[in-house]
Amino acid sequence: MDIKAYLNEKRDLVDSYLRIYFSDPSKPFLLHESVTYSLFAGGKRVRPILALASYEACGGDPVNILPQACALELIHTYSLIHDDLPAMDNDSLRRGKPTNHKVFGEAMAILAGDALLTEAFSMISSIQTLDGGIKDSSILEVVRRVSFASGVHGMVGGQGQDMLSENSIPDAETLEFIHLRKTAALIKASVIIGPVLAGSERSILDALSSYGEYIGLVFQIVDDILDVEGTTAQLGKTAGADSKSRKLTYPAVYGLEKARQKAEDLVSKAIHCLRPFSSDADPLREIALYLLRRRA
Amino acid sequence: MDIKAYLNEKRDLVDSYLRIYFSDPSKPFLLHESVTYSLFAGGKRVRPILALASYEACGGDPVNILPQACALELIHTYSLIHDDLPAMDNDSLRRGKPTNHKVFGEAMAILAGDALLTEAFSMISSIQTLDGGIKDSSILEVVRRVSFASGVHGMVGGQGQDMLSENSIPDAETLEFIHLRKTAALIKASVIIGPVLAGSERSILDALSSYGEYIGLVFQIVDDILDVEGTTAQLGKTAGADSKSRKLTYPAVYGLEKARQKAEDLVSKAIHCLRPFSSDADPLREIALYLLRRRA
Repeated sequence: MDIKAYLNEKRDLVDSYLRIYFSDPSKPFLLHESVTYSLFAGGKRVRPILALASYEACGGDPVNILPQACALELIHTYSLIHDDLPAMDNDSLRRGKPTNHKVFGEAMAILAGDALLTEAFSMISSIQTLDGGIKDSSILEVVRRVSFASGVHGMVGGQGQDMLSENSIPDAETLEFIHLRKTAALIKASVIIGPVLAGSERSILDALSSYGEYIGLVFQIVDDILDVEGTTAQLGKTAGADSKSRKLTYPAVYGLEKARQKAEDLVSKAIHCLRPFSSDADPLREIALYLLRRRA
Repeated sequence: MDIKAYLNEKRDLVDSYLRIYFSDPSKPFLLHESVTYSLFAGGKRVRPILALASYEACGGDPVNILPQACALELIHTYSLIHDDLPAMDNDSLRRGKPTNHKVFGEAMAILAGDALLTEAFSMISSIQTLDGGIKDSSILEVVRRVSFASGVHGMVGGQGQDMLSENSIPDAETLEFIHLRKTAALIKASVIIGPVLAGSERSILDALSSYGEYIGLVFQIVDDILDVEGTTAQLGKTAGADSKSRKLTYPAVYGLEKARQKAEDLVSKAIHCLRPFSSDADPLREIALYLLRRRA
């Protein structure tokens, strides 16, 4: 299959949904501008696409779950805005543009993040989804899974430990703790909402859950490697930022070569999890490889 | 009825639920400490109590909706932590204690707020509530109502406009825009989750919705008045902070006397909305009066 074409097609679907959802600016307009500035800064839409691909692998029609899938992008975007703040990672460049607080100031950046996180739960629970015949209990399960993956037991906890571990001695256990939460948790949740909304059986859910965790780790390891090997122009964010702030990363703990090997092993494991699936899961298989090979 | 005893009893119920919910600290411990520091700083638990009282007025047993009611306190607490940040209102005192960022630093304060907001949706959707025979569709409706009231169309939008209106010319229309969103929206949502979870009919929902909006405005007007008349010791937060940062407040627009009159009128209107209810709604009637008379 042509994975590039698949990713472009799904990205367009996600972008259209988000464009319509945010097409009616509400007061205060500066806050709306701050929200949409970051949301439409050219993100790859990896998390929504994973949700759509996973739902497809379970036999569903992706358009039915656009609200739940796109909500993941809101959460991801909020996390980037808050992580970039001066008090956090203090980054000035993101996706090749000045970070949110550089353009709108810290107060609006904090509020834009808060707004996006809150709106994610409005989007997940929005009523238009009832058309697709999806059960309320399934949508509620998505609220549970996504909030768990985004909170103290997931993304926020990971980011907190990440901040606290700057300048600390490289330590494999803490590194895994951070990466499982900071990045892998939400990516895993993105994959899981597919079978949850499709009402799939337990074994399917478990298989996709493992797949999601493996590729979530791959995503972060590759991020760490790119921070060392990539250029600022390629990445659209400041290259070398991790080592500069002495972050706990895979290359810092294992070295570049072992980090790369680890990512490859995880991709093999992820694809192995997809054995129970037909060719409907080919996009998921290809996405795993794509995440390994990406250069930005 | 003895409203003080009622408020104490319900506050203890809320505190017990929250204490148990947060009794198992997860890593990173500093983040957990930061979260619980603000959550257990002595809040009056007005929003959860309103939800419980409203559910009671609709014939329900309050213990059945503790997760949904207590989630409102998480959202309220997150908003205080973020509002107090240096980039926002830059406050150093809250509930008689140093603000979160003064104790834990800005990064942990931002993350603690993010964690509380996220956890609120975990709490609302937590499965233990199924015992009370509450429908999934009703809980989803709570997710919708609470996220709407907390996001750009509610609290975050109000706080954004509040920030943007500092130092501006007093203007009644903008003042109402801010107050309806910054404070009244979440208070109204707190009252509404009662009939939503009880499965009450439309007319009941409308009556409580109006009641909620009126007392939400009362709450904010009294807050504005206390900022002028109260002392820092009484309030537990810096008195006179609004006029110092030239906030758009009721006393600034209407003067103290008219502001007080407006609050009294709104309480009368709020109580009038409760005509369809029996003595089951007496706590709601008394709470309206209590919010008017409070001194802190």
